[in-house]
Amino acid sequence: MTELKLDAPLLFETAREGEANRVRFAELGLFALNLMSGPGAGKTRLLERTLEGLAGELRIGVIEGDIEGAADAERLARLGAPVTTINTHGSCHLDPRQVMDAALSLPRADLDLLVIENVGNLVCPAEFDVGESARAMLLSVPEGHDKPAKYPLMFRTADLLLINKIDLLELCDFDAAAAEHDARALNPALAVRRLSCRTGEGLEGWIDWLRGRIGGGTTGRPAR
Amino acid sequence: MTELKLDAPLLFETAREGEANRVRFAELGLFALNLMSGPGAGKTRLLERTLEGLAGELRIGVIEGDIEGAADAERLARLGAPVTTINTHGSCHLDPRQVMDAALSLPRADLDLLVIENVGNLVCPAEFDVGESARAMLLSVPEGHDKPAKYPLMFRTADLLLINKIDLLELCDFDAAAAEHDARALNPALAVRRLSCRTGEGLEGWIDWLRGRIGGGTTGRPAR
Repeated sequence: MTELKLDAPLLFETAREGEANRVRFAELGLFALNLMSGPGAGKTRLLERTLEGLAGELRIGVIEGDIEGAADAERLARLGAPVTTINTHGSCHLDPRQVMDAALSLPRADLDLLVIENVGNLVCPAEFDVGESARAMLLSVPEGHDKPAKYPLMFRTADLLLINKIDLLELCDFDAAAAEHDARALNPALAVRRLSCRTGEGLEGWIDWLRGRIGGGTTGRPAR
Repeated sequence: MTELKLDAPLLFETAREGEANRVRFAELGLFALNLMSGPGAGKTRLLERTLEGLAGELRIGVIEGDIEGAADAERLARLGAPVTTINTHGSCHLDPRQVMDAALSLPRADLDLLVIENVGNLVCPAEFDVGESARAMLLSVPEGHDKPAKYPLMFRTADLLLINKIDLLELCDFDAAAAEHDARALNPALAVRRLSCRTGEGLEGWIDWLRGRIGGGTTGRPAR
């Protein structure tokens, strides 16, 4: 109960700041994608593949959210992407103010897409609206198909679920149809794509979704 | 900064309650193990294997921490363990008061070990002392060997690191020696065991560690 009392003003303030970010991103003409997952589901690997797949077609900037270190940002910078790191130093999610400060520090003039790679955590980042235009989440096959029921908010608030590491399907006890079913029971509008960043299978489905959303041009995601 | 101001009294109160739990667990003669990992690293599967491996030798009670649902508790109850669930309803970790309430709700008279399976999260649970006698954490091979540097507090405060899913080593870009090296750089006293709950390889090493700790009998882990 103590916790609730302390957290309510913070969450209210954060929602207000998220909405302000959304207005600002629209003014800047930036499509902002909040990319989330548990640790090690493959967010950075997906971005490497995406930068390679869309090279010369879309200009993508990245905000890397990590508790410590800049290893992921270095991986993406090697591919030529404008990238900046937010180190949260212990905090389990990105907040709207950090995200806007980071976005404004990037060279933005020619960006088509800004990806916000959140802290690896299937719980807390889902609670914080950072003003994104859309939310994509990864669930990787080795994590198990029982995750929608156990981490419902993340699945409920995502626009796209990427089931990653499908090259491991035969070695893991993962029922992809059950995962999709349970996720859509929480969120009927959820788009789902299956892929393997290791083999490249299914990457085109993800990239087409991205092209469609950016082409659609809307940054008008309603606040939750 | 807002967040720090709000959280400081809460964290102080939690540390005090964790220490009170430690005294209470000692009075009850209970060895309490706080078991932590990111989502899907294999905590519940490990407990299934452990209950099977120690059946007739040690009596193990379990507190299952989950945001929603009782699926994991049902899996363990089928193996005859006394088990109770804490649903945090959105919260990303277990707190000391929840843990003691749950512990007191279990039949405890003949328990040798109480396992507290924390919420699947590599960040927040590490911050909360629930009064445990020891901390064990899982890192699974598909998550990647870069996790110690990115989630340092969890590795720094653990007594045992279990590297799980080693049956997937050949298919994943995971350098186990690097993971161990980086984890021990953060925490030189850290014990490390490698295992696969799927094939059973290495389970004996974990079970021996557990026997040694419980046999040692100390519930006197110093507060952090």
